Amino acid sequence: MSSDSQQSAARFPSEIYSSRLARAAEYAGQAGLDALLISPGPDLRYLVGSQASSFERLICLVVAADGSTPTVVVPRLELAALQPSAVTELGLRVTDWVDGVSPYDIVAGMLPSGAATAVDDAMPALHFVPLADKLGRTPVLATEVLRRLRMLKDDSEIAALRRAGQAIDRVHARMGEFLKVGRTEAAVAADIGDAIVAEGHTEAAFIIVGSGPHGADPHHEVSDRVIEVGDVVVIDIGGPVDPGYNSDSTRTYVLGEPSSEIAAQYAVLERAQQAAVDAVAPGVTAEAIDAAARDILVAEGLGEAFLHRTGHGIGLSVHEEPYIVAGNDIELVDGMAFSIEPGIYFRGHWGARIEDIVIVTADGCESVNQRPHGLVSLPID
Amino acid sequence: MSSDSQQSAARFPSEIYSSRLARAAEYAGQAGLDALLISPGPDLRYLVGSQASSFERLICLVVAADGSTPTVVVPRLELAALQPSAVTELGLRVTDWVDGVSPYDIVAGMLPSGAATAVDDAMPALHFVPLADKLGRTPVLATEVLRRLRMLKDDSEIAALRRAGQAIDRVHARMGEFLKVGRTEAAVAADIGDAIVAEGHTEAAFIIVGSGPHGADPHHEVSDRVIEVGDVVVIDIGGPVDPGYNSDSTRTYVLGEPSSEIAAQYAVLERAQQAAVDAVAPGVTAEAIDAAARDILVAEGLGEAFLHRTGHGIGLSVHEEPYIVAGNDIELVDGMAFSIEPGIYFRGHWGARIEDIVIVTADGCESVNQRPHGLVSLPID
Repeated sequence: MSSDSQQSAARFPSEIYSSRLARAAEYAGQAGLDALLISPGPDLRYLVGSQASSFERLICLVVAADGSTPTVVVPRLELAALQPSAVTELGLRVTDWVDGVSPYDIVAGMLPSGAATAVDDAMPALHFVPLADKLGRTPVLATEVLRRLRMLKDDSEIAALRRAGQAIDRVHARMGEFLKVGRTEAAVAADIGDAIVAEGHTEAAFIIVGSGPHGADPHHEVSDRVIEVGDVVVIDIGGPVDPGYNSDSTRTYVLGEPSSEIAAQYAVLERAQQAAVDAVAPGVTAEAIDAAARDILVAEGLGEAFLHRTGHGIGLSVHEEPYIVAGNDIELVDGMAFSIEPGIYFRGHWGARIEDIVIVTADGCESVNQRPHGLVSLPID
Repeated sequence: MSSDSQQSAARFPSEIYSSRLARAAEYAGQAGLDALLISPGPDLRYLVGSQASSFERLICLVVAADGSTPTVVVPRLELAALQPSAVTELGLRVTDWVDGVSPYDIVAGMLPSGAATAVDDAMPALHFVPLADKLGRTPVLATEVLRRLRMLKDDSEIAALRRAGQAIDRVHARMGEFLKVGRTEAAVAADIGDAIVAEGHTEAAFIIVGSGPHGADPHHEVSDRVIEVGDVVVIDIGGPVDPGYNSDSTRTYVLGEPSSEIAAQYAVLERAQQAAVDAVAPGVTAEAIDAAARDILVAEGLGEAFLHRTGHGIGLSVHEEPYIVAGNDIELVDGMAFSIEPGIYFRGHWGARIEDIVIVTADGCESVNQRPHGLVSLPID
């Protein structure tokens, strides 16, 4: 027997989930689907406020496009895991199953043969394959249907993202307590992790301390490397605040003073990040935001040093739609939330990144992060 | 930008992975497959020692059945995440891709059109669906192929499972330090979590403290309920030891002395657990082990109180093949490792479970857990 570690049971009032379920059914119908099949993950949390988790035993929310009462198919063992969710308050149907029974037969039995269904992005192949088999028709992804909902943050979601942004800003404001010459990245990260929780997150979801040459790897995490005088250090941190909305903010620090070359290149990065922020407005495409940052870096000869897309949506997932990347021509809409985080990386030497979360407004955007963007010089004694 | 929290980079020597990859290719061929497509998760860790993780950006190990050098398709951003694995030492091919490129095209381009492929259980629908589309043929699950490997633990895996068992036994041996009248389940769990790490695990993977009526929910985690005199408390705990093999052991405690009814029912449970252990031998089916425990509980009128299967395989995953459940007629083989954990649950009152991990030997089994099976009475002052 085992189970995931305890998570916060916080959720919004049930009316919010009721409205989300109704719109999900409506959008599913508009997409020509008969039903959405949603397994544990951010989509399930979004639709019914449940953080239930289960790997090999199927939990599946069935949302029919005809607007009939949604059903949760759940192992009898996991019934209690639905308690903190809105499932009971909303009067959803619950169909439990016991070991030895096929939950795929149960789901298929609720739908007409050959039904057009869509599943959440996170559903593992372990469930997808037998579901497709029993349904007699391969499900598509529900991404398109659900992103219409999840990308557009309502006031309570925006309030949560602001709280998350303020909480991570407080951690960055304290960085001088943690990031010191002679300490290992791992020791710095441990202190940051404590501060992330102390400042109001329910947990630290990720901590990158990329010092010196490690800063040149955008996805470096932490290591036993000891911080040295002159190191440029990328600190990319975040986590959820109740009810599950994430912070994600990067600032770059230097122990002592940067060389004039580093200062000059960093200034270009700062300009690129600001240009992308300034470009945000309803009707602008995601790829145009990416281009706004990239064009400046390319013009200054730093295009090759910018290894990744400019950003990602954020909410219940740290990474979600919309992705701010070349080729994504989705138009921004008031209420979308995403990161703007260009970086420059010089393999074997150093790297830098500046990341804020912004929310699209009627005429531009609001940043939930307010820490200064400059390269932050920390004392070396 | 974000990334999972740091994990241990420990792995076995590269020869072990080389042998596993060769056998995986061979078994894939025997199953009529052209290739295995393995995304981050326990199968990837099993085959190449990599704990790389990535959600929306595809990482995929392609193991062709023809025995040609396997290829890892990986986002350029995540290249460094392969460093701790055996990928470089084994000379595997690495094909990196950048944001804006379709990694599904890359994978499909490596295989003949209409190739027969199989994917790991954990691959999310987000990747499965577009891969199926580009491949022109829906992949099947690699479960059957990979379980032939992963179910049969070699000597180094058995040694790791023994170390894990001893480590969790040391935590149970200290339970009197943590589990006391007047403390909340959550406070007890926090101390247990520290002890799980202190006794040699790399992390606490799960902690169930089911006190009093909460013990009647097999998947209860922890709560703010305060432990009372007379409570029966189910403690189900575990986590990985390097290089990733898990412990999982349950003991049931009572604060003070149990009633004669509880003691009598617990004695039946103890007998049922022992009967299942005694039934283990090569050639016996998984379902026969389940029946050995269940028959005793049914005969004593406790069949309805036993809500779940008798056990699950364990290794790099806490739950994996073979599942010890009715309907699973797989025959046990020397080297399989799984839990034997019958339980009895009385809704609103109390519950109990006894869980050991056993490894099938030539003539029976070895338990990696050695703590006594009786209901452990803890002092109430």
